[in-house]
Amino acid sequence: MITDLWDQETFVANLRAVGVRAYHDKHPFHLAMNEGRLSPESLRGWVANRFYYQRNIPIKDAAILSNCPVREVRRVWIHRILDHDGTPTRTGGLQSAQPGEVSAAEKLPLLEEGGIEAWLRLGEACGLSRDELLQNRHLLPGVCFAVDAYVNFARTQPWPIAIASSLTELFAPDLMATRLAAFEKFYSWIDPRGLDYFRRRTTQARQDSEQALAITVEYCNTPELQRDAVCALEFKCDVLWSMLDAIHHAYGSQPNL
Amino acid sequence: MITDLWDQETFVANLRAVGVRAYHDKHPFHLAMNEGRLSPESLRGWVANRFYYQRNIPIKDAAILSNCPVREVRRVWIHRILDHDGTPTRTGGLQSAQPGEVSAAEKLPLLEEGGIEAWLRLGEACGLSRDELLQNRHLLPGVCFAVDAYVNFARTQPWPIAIASSLTELFAPDLMATRLAAFEKFYSWIDPRGLDYFRRRTTQARQDSEQALAITVEYCNTPELQRDAVCALEFKCDVLWSMLDAIHHAYGSQPNL
Repeated sequence: MITDLWDQETFVANLRAVGVRAYHDKHPFHLAMNEGRLSPESLRGWVANRFYYQRNIPIKDAAILSNCPVREVRRVWIHRILDHDGTPTRTGGLQSAQPGEVSAAEKLPLLEEGGIEAWLRLGEACGLSRDELLQNRHLLPGVCFAVDAYVNFARTQPWPIAIASSLTELFAPDLMATRLAAFEKFYSWIDPRGLDYFRRRTTQARQDSEQALAITVEYCNTPELQRDAVCALEFKCDVLWSMLDAIHHAYGSQPNL
Repeated sequence: MITDLWDQETFVANLRAVGVRAYHDKHPFHLAMNEGRLSPESLRGWVANRFYYQRNIPIKDAAILSNCPVREVRRVWIHRILDHDGTPTRTGGLQSAQPGEVSAAEKLPLLEEGGIEAWLRLGEACGLSRDELLQNRHLLPGVCFAVDAYVNFARTQPWPIAIASSLTELFAPDLMATRLAAFEKFYSWIDPRGLDYFRRRTTQARQDSEQALAITVEYCNTPELQRDAVCALEFKCDVLWSMLDAIHHAYGSQPNL
């Protein structure tokens, strides 16, 4: 039976506790990755499959935007889509209907290329072509189902709960730092310029998770919503874990030495 | 029976023809507005009700983003949400969870305040408080149903068709210019600074419609999709017309002189 509203400190502690017990940094495949026990084939399998997650993040975040009637929240959340998609360059993007006219997109500042592009470059650094990734050629059913479940969750759940599900970002910077060191040490066959995505996400994930946590604490403001937020974060951990299950079964890792 | 793919010129001509016969510039309420035949009460009723349309535009555009798997299209489309919502200022927006840290939102450039804010100022210039608008105090059922139908259309239709439905923007600049002149001439009791929204939309609508037209022509690329795009634009004209029906019935206009 649900009883009391948690105070902010308890609520945040309960959210963080989910990461301690369920975040995918403890999955055998990640342990193997960070200990240098992945073959090039396994690593490529992970990069190719994780791309399906990456490419669906803006879709998921747009679903949250579309469910959120609070302008102040939308104005904060939208940068996630810009971070992943990037913004069009002066020469790229769609042609305007009447050549010679200045398109509205050109009013946007030139930001970075975006996280999806950075992941495509990680793929190339691993020996995977852009087409292999863009056409989902290596996508495993279990990964597809898990990612689709996450997007569907964001479409159908109340937006503060969908935002709470993104809080795995709270636990991401440590994993990202460990991963970056592991890649440089154990997988030197990968061009280090391909690792930009991890570098940028170390900072972005910290900023993103602060914003998401502030929104979760403010808008999950009933006992029921607080419990649902914790469940949403558990669900998201299950999504990430389930992806690694499928990848581990398909590509394997070398035994612990 | 659907037969041939229209060439681009025919397709665009068929889209433009929808505006000639069905755009709401020909609605009796708009004719009365532009001829100076609206009472302050009627004009306020229109401003208050049209605000419900304005505030739902970013929700509608986020639904389109969320349904669109094409990154190049999303990168162009997203500026509409920024245009309407604006971006947070350094001091505004949500507080970060850990004060003192730089939030990711602060990396965004300082754009304008956004179209929704500009419409709130139009309301104030007409004598409507922000709260009256934000709480939908004057919202008529017919306006609510029409706007909700438009948002629902964007959520459920294929994204190129939802984009085609936005093409009423093709016809907006002329109406906006006429309206601006009418407001300055007939409704001088409204502070002219409140008319910023119309001024900025005259330019934005032209740019937006060029982009939307280019996307529609590129992605509505079967005979069926072309016909559906024309129907989508007719539907959108019905949405705008139906809003004015409800407003006209509720608030009226003075007879033609």
